[in-house]
Amino acid sequence: MIICMKQGAPRTQADHVIKAVEDAGLEPAPLFGTERTVIAVLGDERELDMKKFKAMEGVENVMPVLRPYQLVSRESHQGDTIVDFGNGVKIGGKEDIAIMAGPCSVETEELIMDVAEHVKQKGAQFLRGGAFKPRTGPYSFQGHGEEALKWMKKAGEKTGLKVVTEVLDTQHVDMMYDYIDMYQVGARNMQNFELLKALGRKDKPVLLKRGMSAKFNEFLLAAEYIAKEGNSKIVLCERGIRTFCGYSRNTIDINVIPWVKKMSHLPIILDPSHGTGSYEMVQPIAMAGVAAGADGIMMEVHPRPEQAWSDGDQSIKYDTLDTVLDGIHKIAEVVRK
Amino acid sequence: MIICMKQGAPRTQADHVIKAVEDAGLEPAPLFGTERTVIAVLGDERELDMKKFKAMEGVENVMPVLRPYQLVSRESHQGDTIVDFGNGVKIGGKEDIAIMAGPCSVETEELIMDVAEHVKQKGAQFLRGGAFKPRTGPYSFQGHGEEALKWMKKAGEKTGLKVVTEVLDTQHVDMMYDYIDMYQVGARNMQNFELLKALGRKDKPVLLKRGMSAKFNEFLLAAEYIAKEGNSKIVLCERGIRTFCGYSRNTIDINVIPWVKKMSHLPIILDPSHGTGSYEMVQPIAMAGVAAGADGIMMEVHPRPEQAWSDGDQSIKYDTLDTVLDGIHKIAEVVRK
Amino acid sequence: MIICMKQGAPRTQADHVIKAVEDAGLEPAPLFGTERTVIAVLGDERELDMKKFKAMEGVENVMPVLRPYQLVSRESHQGDTIVDFGNGVKIGGKEDIAIMAGPCSVETEELIMDVAEHVKQKGAQFLRGGAFKPRTGPYSFQGHGEEALKWMKKAGEKTGLKVVTEVLDTQHVDMMYDYIDMYQVGARNMQNFELLKALGRKDKPVLLKRGMSAKFNEFLLAAEYIAKEGNSKIVLCERGIRTFCGYSRNTIDINVIPWVKKMSHLPIILDPSHGTGSYEMVQPIAMAGVAAGADGIMMEVHPRPEQAWSDGDQSIKYDTLDTVLDGIHKIAEVVRK
Amino acid sequence: MIICMKQGAPRTQADHVIKAVEDAGLEPAPLFGTERTVIAVLGDERELDMKKFKAMEGVENVMPVLRPYQLVSRESHQGDTIVDFGNGVKIGGKEDIAIMAGPCSVETEELIMDVAEHVKQKGAQFLRGGAFKPRTGPYSFQGHGEEALKWMKKAGEKTGLKVVTEVLDTQHVDMMYDYIDMYQVGARNMQNFELLKALGRKDKPVLLKRGMSAKFNEFLLAAEYIAKEGNSKIVLCERGIRTFCGYSRNTIDINVIPWVKKMSHLPIILDPSHGTGSYEMVQPIAMAGVAAGADGIMMEVHPRPEQAWSDGDQSIKYDTLDTVLDGIHKIAEVVRK
Repeated sequence: MIICMKQGAPRTQADHVIKAVEDAGLEPAPLFGTERTVIAVLGDERELDMKKFKAMEGVENVMPVLRPYQLVSRESHQGDTIVDFGNGVKIGGKEDIAIMAGPCSVETEELIMDVAEHVKQKGAQFLRGGAFKPRTGPYSFQGHGEEALKWMKKAGEKTGLKVVTEVLDTQHVDMMYDYIDMYQVGARNMQNFELLKALGRKDKPVLLKRGMSAKFNEFLLAAEYIAKEGNSKIVLCERGIRTFCGYSRNTIDINVIPWVKKMSHLPIILDPSHGTGSYEMVQPIAMAGVAAGADGIMMEVHPRPEQAWSDGDQSIKYDTLDTVLDGIHKIAEVVRK
Repeated sequence: MIICMKQGAPRTQADHVIKAVEDAGLEPAPLFGTERTVIAVLGDERELDMKKFKAMEGVENVMPVLRPYQLVSRESHQGDTIVDFGNGVKIGGKEDIAIMAGPCSVETEELIMDVAEHVKQKGAQFLRGGAFKPRTGPYSFQGHGEEALKWMKKAGEKTGLKVVTEVLDTQHVDMMYDYIDMYQVGARNMQNFELLKALGRKDKPVLLKRGMSAKFNEFLLAAEYIAKEGNSKIVLCERGIRTFCGYSRNTIDINVIPWVKKMSHLPIILDPSHGTGSYEMVQPIAMAGVAAGADGIMMEVHPRPEQAWSDGDQSIKYDTLDTVLDGIHKIAEVVRK
Repeated sequence: MIICMKQGAPRTQADHVIKAVEDAGLEPAPLFGTERTVIAVLGDERELDMKKFKAMEGVENVMPVLRPYQLVSRESHQGDTIVDFGNGVKIGGKEDIAIMAGPCSVETEELIMDVAEHVKQKGAQFLRGGAFKPRTGPYSFQGHGEEALKWMKKAGEKTGLKVVTEVLDTQHVDMMYDYIDMYQVGARNMQNFELLKALGRKDKPVLLKRGMSAKFNEFLLAAEYIAKEGNSKIVLCERGIRTFCGYSRNTIDINVIPWVKKMSHLPIILDPSHGTGSYEMVQPIAMAGVAAGADGIMMEVHPRPEQAWSDGDQSIKYDTLDTVLDGIHKIAEVVRK
Repeated sequence: MIICMKQGAPRTQADHVIKAVEDAGLEPAPLFGTERTVIAVLGDERELDMKKFKAMEGVENVMPVLRPYQLVSRESHQGDTIVDFGNGVKIGGKEDIAIMAGPCSVETEELIMDVAEHVKQKGAQFLRGGAFKPRTGPYSFQGHGEEALKWMKKAGEKTGLKVVTEVLDTQHVDMMYDYIDMYQVGARNMQNFELLKALGRKDKPVLLKRGMSAKFNEFLLAAEYIAKEGNSKIVLCERGIRTFCGYSRNTIDINVIPWVKKMSHLPIILDPSHGTGSYEMVQPIAMAGVAAGADGIMMEVHPRPEQAWSDGDQSIKYDTLDTVLDGIHKIAEVVRK
C-alpha cells in the first residue's frame, strides 16, 4: 500500500498516519519529498480496509500494491487450471476448444431434446438452456424451473452432453445438484455473494459470467469467493459489458481474455450471443474470441429463432451452427495446436 | 411496437412479419414507404418477446412504443406514492425530506447506539447500518449478521428511529422481518429477481438501490417486480452509476431524479456517500440532490471514520453532519415548501 | 512516481529500473518487500514519459504521485480565479451566479435580437448562440458563420449582454476576436490542442466545455494548455458525459463541480440543456448545479422551440425561463450569500 | 421517422404534429391506438431536425427510421470499397491484410529509418509515426512537426513503404500533402468537422480513427463528412473506446468490425496498441481483430521501448514483431483466403 499525503500537509499529520500503519501491524517506510510526503507500507494489506487511511487528515490518496485476489491468481498456482467433467470433457490449458450450445430458454421437452441431438452431432460437448430465467421484466416468461431441469438431464443422458444451466438463488442450489453438470452464475448475480459462497461449498464446476459493469478485480474476486469456500472448478465467461454503444446488446471486452490468461490460472470462455445480441455477429466474434485465447464458446441455438420464447434475435439456426463451428475450429487449430 | 424492414426487403418478407404479428394476437398497420416498409403494431406488446420479430428475415429493427412497466408508472396512479412508516414518518410527495444516517457497518453495539442517539438528536428519521455486508472481496469484514440486527432494533427502539438495513439473500427475508422497518436492496442485487419477488410478498417498505449499470427501464422494472407481488411500499435510491470517471467512486446520475418524478409515482432518495466516495463531497452533492427533487438523503456517518471497519473515506463525522443537515434543510425549504 | 515490480522479479531487473530512474535525473528510493519490490521516485516526474518505465522488464505498474497540471491547480494559486468581462460582469468566487442564455443556432438576426432583449430583461449577463455549428451529420444546418457573429455583436451592443459563441477551427480565431466577448470550446474540441494553444495566445476569456469522455485530469490539462500559453481567463463548463444511460442526452457528472472547486482555482458552470437534452429537466438540474457550487448556468432558450433549427427539444420557452431563473436565484441565495 | 404521442395526449395535440409534419414536406400516417397515438412519417427525414417535433406538446418520443449516413452506407454502393495506394498496395475487400507499423513519435531520423527498414523487411506495407503529437498534457513532447515529415518521406522513399501520419489542424493539411501517402485523423479529432471537410477536399486517402466515445452512427457520419466533400478514399480504424474498465488503456469494441462490414462498404482496420495499451496484449488482440474481419492492423513498434519518448508501454520490440506478424498471417489465411 502507498499512502500519498497532500501537498503541504504538516509533519504531524504524516506522523499520525505512520502511527496508524504501525497500529495495524504493518511497517511504514516514509519518504519526505520536496512537494509531498509518500508513505510506503510493507506487509500484507489485503485483510485491512485501506479506506480508513484515506479518511485521515492530510491524506490525498491510498494506492494498493498487492493484487486483492490470491487463490485465483496466476502467482498462486503453477500452470493452467483444467476443469474436468469426466468422459474426457475438459476445459482449459491446451484442451480442445469447449463448445456450449442450446436454446436461451428450455421451452419444451421436445425442443431441448431436438437441440441436444443436433448440437451433439455437430461436436458440442455441453448443452446450455435456461430453466430459471432472470428476465428484466416480471411479465416475461420466467422459465419452467425444475421441470425444465428434468428435461435437460434426460437430454444430457441421451446424448452424452454435459448440462450447464443458470442458478438464481441459494435456495435452488441443492435441488439443482443432481440434474446438472455445471452451475452457471449469470451476469446479474456475479456479486450475489451468498450465492457464490453456497456454490463454493459444492463440488460441481461453476461457470461464472462477468457482470455487466464488473471491473477486472471484481470479476476475479467473485471467483475468489467460490475458491475460498473450497471449490476450485471455476470457468470464467466474458459476455459483454455495458457501455455507451447502443448498436449491439453489449460490448465484448475482448482484451479481458489475454488479461485473464496473464493474471489468473482459470480458464475463460466467450459468449458471443449475449455479447453481441445479433445472430449475424456470432460467427466473426466467436472466431475473434478463439483467436484471442478463449478456451470455449457458449452460443444460443434454436431451430426456429423467430418463434423462440426469448432471445430469438441472437440465436443462430442449425445450418448457421455448422458454419460457425467450422470457423471456430479452423481458428482453434491455429492458436491451440 | 414498430417493426422496420430492411431497405429493399421483398414484399414477401413483410407479409411473413405481418402474419406473425396477427398470429401473436396483435393488429399490424403496414406502411410501404419509398425506401423502407414500416409495420406499426397496435395492441399490448408487453407480454410478448419482441426479439422474435427481430429474428425474422428482412427485419432491420424492432422498437417498443409502450413503457414496459405498469404498476410503478406515473400513468397508472394519480398523485405521488407516500410510504408511511408510522409515528408520522413518511417519504414522498410534499412530506419532509427524509434523512437516513448511520455507519457503513454495524461494528459494535456501542457504536450503533452512539450513532443512533447522535443522528436522532440532529433530526434524522432513519438509522442505516450494514449487518450483512456485500463486500467485493471475501477477505473483507462480512458483517455481524443477526447479532447486528438485534443491536439495530434496540437502537431503533431507544431513539424512535426507523431501522433500514440491507438484505442479501432470500433465506434472510423472514428472519430479518421483526428486526427492521425497511428492507434495503443493494445495487449489486437490483436484478436479483428471486429476492425482489420475496420482498414483494412482504408488507414492509423496500428501499431499492439502483444497480451500477442499470438503465432507467431496468430500474423501474426491478421496482415493478416488487409491486407485482403486492408490495407497493417502494422507495427508489440513486447511489451512483459506473462510468469511465475514476476520480469519484461512482458517478451520480442527477438527471434520474426529475426523470423518476416524471415517469413514476414512487419516491426517490439520493445516497451521496456511495455516489461520491468522499466525505468532502457529501454536503454539496446532498444539497444538489434535494434541489433536483430528491425525497430524502442517505448518508454514512461515523464518530471516527479513520477507524471505521469499512467505507471510512466516505463517512462524515458528527460535527460535519450538522453542517450537512443545515445545508440540506435550507435547500429543502426552497424546493419543498 | 511509484514503480511496482512484478512479484518474484529478480533483483537485477529492479537494478535496471533504479539506474534508469537515476539516468532520468530523479532519485530512486527502493523498498524491498517480502512479496514485491517497490521503487518510490523523488523529484518532478511531470516532464517525463512515465510509460517508458512500464516498458521495462519486471515492471508491473507505474503510478504517478504528483498532479499533472500545475497552473490551473488549486495548489498554485491562492483564492479563486475571477474572470472579469468589464461593466461589472464577473464569473467565479462569490460573484453573482452567471446566466448565459440564448438559442442553439443563430437562425436569423430577428431571432437573436428578440432573444437577447428577453433574456437581458430577465437578468442574464451573457448571450449564447451558435454561428459555427458542430453538427453530427454533414446534412444538418452548419450555422451562418461570420454573418451570425455580426448579428450577435449587434445584439450584445444593444442589450449590454456579453457574447459567447463557439470557435471550431484555428483559422477562425482572429476573425472572431472583434465580434465576441468569450470564445467557447465545444465538447468535441476539448482536446483539439492546436485550437487550445491558439486561444491561449489571445487575451479574451475562454469557456472550455468538458469532452464527452474526458477524465478529470484531461479536463484540467486542456485548461492547462490554454494557461500555459499565457491566457488565464478560463471558465470550465460541465455539459454531461457519455454513459450507458440512454434516457437523457448525456449524464451530468454533478460530482465534478465540488471536485473542480477542490482541485482548481478556476470557475465552473453547468449546462443543463446539453446535460439533459430535455426542456422538462432544465429547471431541477440547473438548481442542482447551483446547489453543488456552480458559478453559472448556460441554457438554450428559444421563443418557439418547435420551430428551432436545432436542439428544439432541449430549449426552454420565454415563460419557462422566468420560472427557471426564479429557482436558480433562490438556490444561489442559500449557497452563495 | 416515428412520432409517439404521450399516453392520453388529446387529439388536438396530435393534429398539431400532423400539420407540422405536412408543413415540413413529409407525409404523416397517424395510427390511433387504444393507449397511445403513433404518427409514422413517410419521406426523407435526414435533412430535417427531428428534435423540433420532440419539442411539441404531447410528444413523448421521436424515432428515426432511415440511417442518417448515405454515401458511406452499404446500401449506396455495391461491393466493398478498396483503397488503392499504388504499387499494388490496397486496403479492403479480399486484398491482403494491411500492416501499418512504426514508432509512436518520430523521435529522430535514425530511428524512423531503422524502424522503416525493419518493418518493411518483415512485410509491412505502411510506415506509421507521429510528427504532430496530440498529447494530453502541454508539458509532454509535442512532436518534431515538418522536420519529422521530411524524415518519414525519406524513409518511405527508401523502403517503398507508404507513409501515414496524423494531421492535427486544418492549417497543416496543405503543407503535409507532399510528404505523406495517407492522412490520419486521430480519435480526439474524429468530430473536428472543419478538419474532416478540409480532408474531404483532398485526393489522398484518410485513415479515420474512431473517437473514444463515438457511437456507431457518429463514426460513420464523420466518414460521411469526408465523403460528402468528394473524397471517398476512407479507411476506418477501431482503436478502443472509453469504458469503466481501467485495467487496459481502452476497451476494444470488437463488435464494431462485423457491424461496419454489414452497414458500410468502407474498409476497417484495428489498432491493438492503443486499444490495449500493453505490448503483452498486442498479439492476441491483433489476431482477434483479423479473425473478426479487420482489413488491417496498425501497431506501434520501437527498437527500445524503454527509451521511447512516448507510448513505450504499448510498443512491441523487433523480435516480438516477428511473432505477432506470424500470428496475424496465419489467421488471415483462414478468414481472407
